[in-house]
Amino acid sequence: MRPYVVVNVAMSADGKLSTRERRQVKISGPQDFNRVDRLKAGSDAVMVGIGTVLADDPSLTVKGEECRLHRKNLGAGEHPVRIVVDSRARIPLEASILYKGTGLRIVAVSEKADPTRVAALRHYATVITTGENNVDLTALMDELGTMGIRRIMVEGGGELIAGLIRAGLVDEIFTFIGNLIIGGRNAPTLADGDGFLAEDEFSRLTLIETHRIEDGVLLHWKVEQQDTR
Amino acid sequence: MRPYVVVNVAMSADGKLSTRERRQVKISGPQDFNRVDRLKAGSDAVMVGIGTVLADDPSLTVKGEECRLHRKNLGAGEHPVRIVVDSRARIPLEASILYKGTGLRIVAVSEKADPTRVAALRHYATVITTGENNVDLTALMDELGTMGIRRIMVEGGGELIAGLIRAGLVDEIFTFIGNLIIGGRNAPTLADGDGFLAEDEFSRLTLIETHRIEDGVLLHWKVEQQDTR
Repeated sequence: MRPYVVVNVAMSADGKLSTRERRQVKISGPQDFNRVDRLKAGSDAVMVGIGTVLADDPSLTVKGEECRLHRKNLGAGEHPVRIVVDSRARIPLEASILYKGTGLRIVAVSEKADPTRVAALRHYATVITTGENNVDLTALMDELGTMGIRRIMVEGGGELIAGLIRAGLVDEIFTFIGNLIIGGRNAPTLADGDGFLAEDEFSRLTLIETHRIEDGVLLHWKVEQQDTR
Repeated sequence: MRPYVVVNVAMSADGKLSTRERRQVKISGPQDFNRVDRLKAGSDAVMVGIGTVLADDPSLTVKGEECRLHRKNLGAGEHPVRIVVDSRARIPLEASILYKGTGLRIVAVSEKADPTRVAALRHYATVITTGENNVDLTALMDELGTMGIRRIMVEGGGELIAGLIRAGLVDEIFTFIGNLIIGGRNAPTLADGDGFLAEDEFSRLTLIETHRIEDGVLLHWKVEQQDTR
């Protein structure tokens, strides 16, 4: 059974995750930060695309001491499994995600990834190879499910999320919408990729909750889909 | 005094106004349609960019009979003044906006617009020329203010809105967020253009109201800015 997938992003009022230069922008405040930390702590794994690693170099660790303690008390590791979708194995070996904090790392690559890079990477992470040119996200999720990962939080970026949505692999989406306009026709959004064109292709959602947090609003969506789990 | 400018758009949950092919998408339902019609009826003018005219061929008329009657009773025309920002005078002479419904049309062009096209256009619309290569939006707004237009509703698209925001000409923004994902790195958004890069460039907003309508949510923002009016 594939894992339950929850996407969480912060976006500007015009739907941008960052500037066109992919520079990280402070969109939310401490209250939303804590919500995201709790969401992360409640997940078996947290996943990002290679673009996000190259742009932001996140560690994806759980920040709150209480959250980490809660995980420990449940017999889980301090941090969720950290997963990078990285078709060409471009992740730098000094990426924060590979050495900050304890716990398992998984890098998902495709058959096109350079074997030398993959061999080096195996010192730092479990490598899963699926797909010819790009990671086969469905096969990856099945593999992660087999490994006992039941709940994944996806933090971005827009290309990975678009791929997951297209493959019908996303169950819930949280979008925090902050009180600013970033603008830019080339700035990343929640769902980039090629995009859908026809009415029957669009991914349909149900709005579960709206909640004002600090100077913005959190929207919580459920993705309506054929149950592929 | 420049007019008070209210932007209104419907976007998908991932912040897209339409598909990457600019095909119009049904994002909201009849209840939101009526809200938008009332907002339009309460405006002296409604403005769009040439991209929107070429993609959707909107008439921008007030649809509800009651709304039109209300305008008449106030001594206003049945429809607001309809304004197209069209630097190169690309608007087709058979565009709906030029012949559907009664009332004044204004086409704003730049000095680069072809004089023959502009001359032909003058049979259908008042032409305002400002700016060397692109319409000077600040000068245009001043001119519209001089003509007695005090309140403008802007319906899109993302390039025009980005230009207006950059020039500090937007006062309020309504975004209806619908329950679908359109996706696409090249699909239009609320604010396209080049986008802002630095923290102190971002346009800052205040969230006035959130309101669930049908299957989505309406966000009402005030733009925080130096008062340029």
